[in-house]
Amino acid sequence: MEKEELFETVASLLVKSDYSSLRRILAELEPFDLAEICEELNESHLPLVFRLIPKDAAAECFANMSSELQELLILRMSDAELKAMLDELFVDDTVDIIEEMPANVAARMLANSDPETRQQINEILNYPKDSAGSIMTTEYVRLNKNMSVADAFARIRRVGYEKETIYTCYVTESDRTLVGVVTAMDLMLAETDTLISELMETNVISARTDDDRESVVIKFSDYNFLALPVVDGGNRLVGIVTVDDAIDVALEEATEDVEKMAAITPSDKPYLKVGVFETWKSRIPWLMILMISATFTSAIMASYESVLSNRVILSFFIPMLMGTAGNAGGQTSVTIIRALSLGDVETGDVLRILWKEVRVSLLCGISLAIVCFGKALWLDGADSTEALVVSLTIAMAVVVAKLVGACFPVLIKKIGFDPAVVASPFITTVVDALALVVYFAVATAVIPGLQ
Amino acid sequence: MEKEELFETVASLLVKSDYSSLRRILAELEPFDLAEICEELNESHLPLVFRLIPKDAAAECFANMSSELQELLILRMSDAELKAMLDELFVDDTVDIIEEMPANVAARMLANSDPETRQQINEILNYPKDSAGSIMTTEYVRLNKNMSVADAFARIRRVGYEKETIYTCYVTESDRTLVGVVTAMDLMLAETDTLISELMETNVISARTDDDRESVVIKFSDYNFLALPVVDGGNRLVGIVTVDDAIDVALEEATEDVEKMAAITPSDKPYLKVGVFETWKSRIPWLMILMISATFTSAIMASYESVLSNRVILSFFIPMLMGTAGNAGGQTSVTIIRALSLGDVETGDVLRILWKEVRVSLLCGISLAIVCFGKALWLDGADSTEALVVSLTIAMAVVVAKLVGACFPVLIKKIGFDPAVVASPFITTVVDALALVVYFAVATAVIPGLQ
Repeated sequence: MEKEELFETVASLLVKSDYSSLRRILAELEPFDLAEICEELNESHLPLVFRLIPKDAAAECFANMSSELQELLILRMSDAELKAMLDELFVDDTVDIIEEMPANVAARMLANSDPETRQQINEILNYPKDSAGSIMTTEYVRLNKNMSVADAFARIRRVGYEKETIYTCYVTESDRTLVGVVTAMDLMLAETDTLISELMETNVISARTDDDRESVVIKFSDYNFLALPVVDGGNRLVGIVTVDDAIDVALEEATEDVEKMAAITPSDKPYLKVGVFETWKSRIPWLMILMISATFTSAIMASYESVLSNRVILSFFIPMLMGTAGNAGGQTSVTIIRALSLGDVETGDVLRILWKEVRVSLLCGISLAIVCFGKALWLDGADSTEALVVSLTIAMAVVVAKLVGACFPVLIKKIGFDPAVVASPFITTVVDALALVVYFAVATAVIPGLQ
Repeated sequence: MEKEELFETVASLLVKSDYSSLRRILAELEPFDLAEICEELNESHLPLVFRLIPKDAAAECFANMSSELQELLILRMSDAELKAMLDELFVDDTVDIIEEMPANVAARMLANSDPETRQQINEILNYPKDSAGSIMTTEYVRLNKNMSVADAFARIRRVGYEKETIYTCYVTESDRTLVGVVTAMDLMLAETDTLISELMETNVISARTDDDRESVVIKFSDYNFLALPVVDGGNRLVGIVTVDDAIDVALEEATEDVEKMAAITPSDKPYLKVGVFETWKSRIPWLMILMISATFTSAIMASYESVLSNRVILSFFIPMLMGTAGNAGGQTSVTIIRALSLGDVETGDVLRILWKEVRVSLLCGISLAIVCFGKALWLDGADSTEALVVSLTIAMAVVVAKLVGACFPVLIKKIGFDPAVVASPFITTVVDALALVVYFAVATAVIPGLQ
C-alpha cells in the first residue's frame, strides 16, 4: 500500500471510529512507518492511535518520532504508561530523546526509569557530544569464556529479547575486561559442547569511549561489523554501538560536513521542520563574518584606485579572476577535508599533499591561462598586454588558491579544530584577497607607467 | 599492537625468512588489516605473504586491497589458485573487482568462476551503475514457508557458511516470489516445531533492482535492517543488499555529493592514490566552464563602463557584493540538495521551500544591509548615497540568490538530473551576474546623473 493511501485509510477509520480494523492495520506496519502516520495525525487523535499500536512496536515507533510529538505524547501519558514504554525503549534511544526534551519532561523520564537504567542513562549523557560513548547502548549480551555453546544459547534465549543485538556477543572477565567476541553465526555452526574460549575471536577491534563518532563509522566500514564494543581506558567493556546507529551517524556527519562547508551552523532536524527564525540564526553569523572580512578586498582595490581609473577594463576581469581562484581553492580544500574525515590522509601527509597539489595546480593554472589569454583578447576586447596580465594572474592565483586550500584544512586539523568549518567560503575570502594582490602586482609590473 | 609496529614485525620476519611465526601472526588479524599490510609490502614479497594468510581470511583480505594490488596478485596466481579464491569470494565483491580490472584479467576471472556464479556476475554487471541491482549479492538464505524452525536451522547450518548473512532469511514461493522474512533472532527465540509461515513477517520492505542505491541507504537508516531484499518487477527475489555495503555506499555517496558540490568530477579512489594527471582531469572541466561563463560578468561590467569611470569607488564593493550573494545562494542550494538526497524534501515541496526561503532571505538580507550601510559609511569611506546603493543591493541580491539557490536544485531534480552537479559554483556564477545587474540598476536609479 502506498503511503498516501495508508494515511487516507487511517483517517477514514478514525472518522468511522472503527478501532478494531485500525488496530489490525497498525499491527502490520514497521515502526518507522507508524511514526510517519503519527506525524500526519491531528493532535487530538494522536494519543488514541498511539495506544492502538502493539506494545513492542510502540516504543520503537516512539523513538522514530519528531521531538515535538514525543513531548506531546509524554505529557498525555500517565506515569505508569511512561514507565512501561521506557522499559521497552533501548537505553541509547532514551538518551537521544531525553537530550531533546525540556528539563521538566526529561526529569519525569528519568524519575520513571528503573534505577539501573537511570544510572546508565546518566553515564551516557556525560560523554562528550559526538563521542563513541555518547552513541553507544548498554544493552548487549555478555558471555563468560568458560560457558559452552549450549550455555550461551540458553543465556541468549533468556536475556536476548531485551538486548539491542544478539548477533555479536562479548566475552568478558568478571571485572568486565573485554577478552573476546563471538558471533551468533559461530555459535549456530558449532557443536553444542564447544567452549566459548575455543570459539571466540581474541583479536577484538574496539572503540574508546572518547573516540570521535566519525571514527566509529570508519571502523564499521573497514571491518564490516554488526556491532562495535566500546571500552574505557582499562579495556573494560562499557557499551556497544550497533550498525544501524552507525548508518545514522554516517548520514548525519555527512550532512554536517556539507553544511559547515557551505558556512551554515549544522542542525540535526529535517529542513522543513526548522523554523524560519532558527534557519536565519544558523545562516546569518557566517554571512556577516564573510561580508565584513570582504573589507580587505575593498581596501586592496581602494589602494589601487589610480590603476583602476587609468584602465577601467582591468576591473572587468576581477569577478572572473576571483571566481576562478575561489573555485580552484574550493576544489582542493573540499577534497582534503573529506579525505581527512575518511582517514584517507593524515595531518602528517602534508608534504605529500602539497607536492601533489603543486603539480596539479600548475597543470590547471597553465591550461586556464592559455584559454583565458585567447578569451580576453578575442572575446573581452582586451589588448595583448592586458590579456597577458589577466592570464598570468589566473595561472598564479590558481596555484596560490590550491596551495592555500590544501594547507588550511590540515593546519586547522593539526591545532585540533574541525577543518570543515574553515572550508570553501572562508578560504574563498582569503583567496579572493590574494588573487587581487597578485593581479595588481602583475598589472603594475607588466604595463609600463600604470602605477 | 599498533599498525606501525605490526608492519615492522612483518618486515623483520620476512628478512629472517621466519615464515611459521609470520603465518601465526597473520592468522590473528582482521582481513582489513591484512590488506593494509599487503599494501605496504614490496612487490616481490606480496605473493609469498598472501599465500601465508589462512584461506578463509585471504579472500576477504583480497576484496579489501587496491585494484593495482589485486591485478598484480591475479597475474601471479595459477588458474587453480584463482579458482579457489573466487570460490571463497562473495559474488558482490567479485563484481566490484571485475569492474576495475583490465579486460583480459576480467575475462580470466570469469573463465575461472563456476558456471552458476558466472551467470550471477554477468547479471549484476548488467544493472545500471548506482542502482540497487548493482550493489546486491545473490548469496542469501532462502526458506520455504512450510518448513519448521528445526528445518530452517538445519538448512542454515548446511548452506550458511557460504552466505553473506544468515541473520535475515527470506521466504519465497517456488517461483521466487518474496512472501516473508524471518530473522535469526526470531528463529532462536522460537520453539523448534513452529512453522516458518507462523513466524515470518509478511509486510516485507524491499528495493527494486533499478532503485537508486542512495534510496537503499535511506531504507537501512529508516528501518534499521541488517539486509534489504532486492526484487524485480514481478516481486521475485533476485538478491539482497547487506548493511556493511550500505555503510560503504553512504560514505561514497556523501563524498560524491561533496565533490560535485565543489565542481569536481567524483572519483572513488582515496586522494593519495589518484595520479596528478587524473586529478587534473577531474578538476579542469568545471574550472574551464566556470571561467568562460564568467564572461557574462565581464560583459555586464563593460556595458556600465561609464558608471565605473565616473565613480571608481563603486567597483570596490563588487567583490563583497558578489561574494555575499554567492555565499547566501550556496547556503540555500547546499541545504536543499542535501535535503533532496535524504528524502527530507521532494520536488513537490517547491512552494513550501520557496515560502520558507522568501522569509529567511528577507531576514538575512535586511540584517546584512543594516550592517553593510554602517560599514560602507564608516569603514570603506563611501558617502551616504553610495552606502545606500550598496546596502540596498546586498538586501536584494541576497533574496535573489537564495531563491535561485532554492529553485535550481529542485528544477534540476524534476527534469531528472543530479542536483549536486549544479550546486555552489554554478549557482554562484548565475548569482554573480544577477548581483551585478541589481547593483548597476540600483546605482543608476539612486545616484542622479550617473548613467
